[in-house]
Amino acid sequence: MTTTAPVAVVLLHYPVYDRNRRTVASAITNLDLHDIARAVRTFGLSRYYVVTPAVEQQRLAGQIIGHWRHGYGATYNPKRKAALDLVMVKCTLDDVVHDVETEYGALPRLVATGAAAAATITYSGFREQLGASTTPHLLLFGTGWGLADEVMATADVILPPVRGTGEYNHLSVRSAVAIILDRLFGVEDY
Amino acid sequence: MTTTAPVAVVLLHYPVYDRNRRTVASAITNLDLHDIARAVRTFGLSRYYVVTPAVEQQRLAGQIIGHWRHGYGATYNPKRKAALDLVMVKCTLDDVVHDVETEYGALPRLVATGAAAAATITYSGFREQLGASTTPHLLLFGTGWGLADEVMATADVILPPVRGTGEYNHLSVRSAVAIILDRLFGVEDY
Repeated sequence: MTTTAPVAVVLLHYPVYDRNRRTVASAITNLDLHDIARAVRTFGLSRYYVVTPAVEQQRLAGQIIGHWRHGYGATYNPKRKAALDLVMVKCTLDDVVHDVETEYGALPRLVATGAAAAATITYSGFREQLGASTTPHLLLFGTGWGLADEVMATADVILPPVRGTGEYNHLSVRSAVAIILDRLFGVEDY
Repeated sequence: MTTTAPVAVVLLHYPVYDRNRRTVASAITNLDLHDIARAVRTFGLSRYYVVTPAVEQQRLAGQIIGHWRHGYGATYNPKRKAALDLVMVKCTLDDVVHDVETEYGALPRLVATGAAAAATITYSGFREQLGASTTPHLLLFGTGWGLADEVMATADVILPPVRGTGEYNHLSVRSAVAIILDRLFGVEDY
């Protein structure tokens, strides 16, 4: 599907749940940066925001990204550079919203996802909305055990969980992002 | 889509290409084991074969899997155990084929994938074949810069590359597996 609406992925490391449903800040993972940046680039999205309030973690993400954008990695593997050029590290979701508003002059619609999310729309329904829209959209993904309820509550739309045929749906966030971007923007047969 | 055909994922670390199109054995990656096992479990496949001819690498994979199946990991995170229970490490693709033949009494059809693959079928066409089949199928994925031509040449079917709207299609193998399993077995709206 193609859309004129600018769509970005937001990977939140806070506020998310841990295994005991306590709200925590999770740690940045090297492959979350790489895999999701490559998927965001492949499906033609505008930006990949990585949100963490921890200054140390922001620095770590900056170092990884810098290596592939400007360091040895940029010449070693330009394809990685093209993907990581889309990454922006932010302190909070509010900062992301502000960044989008500044760039496009419009508040983004917030689209939440989760393995146990109470969906407010179908995938086909959301594709239809997005195809007819010019409003910026942010696709929110939680690390750890998923987005805290306070984030879900601010969402304009909640997408259905990704499922196979059974009850087990414990995909990594990397896999969930890849699948959802494919469902929204993938071209199956061409 | 549901099928009565047993379908397994095979992740090949040999023979695959490196960045200079030399045939090499690539290294096992911890997250390839986890992410792909979780996707295989989510989409209800029968097995996840990890192929490497390197004995050291087989041992490493065995240690990681053992930790989550029988060690501390099994009680810490039973969901990981349920996923990694499906993993089997093999030396060669021939060994995998032999294993399937022994288990089901029939040779599997080989289904190749790749970012630059010359497809012999569409996704919808393959879903149709699979839905009507009881033959075991192996979905072959290459690490590194993709499956060597000698593997492609043995395939019964080659699936189209995963693409977005543009030319960039440099997904990680983890993302490609997730997307292709979703295209074949995912239930979008339920």
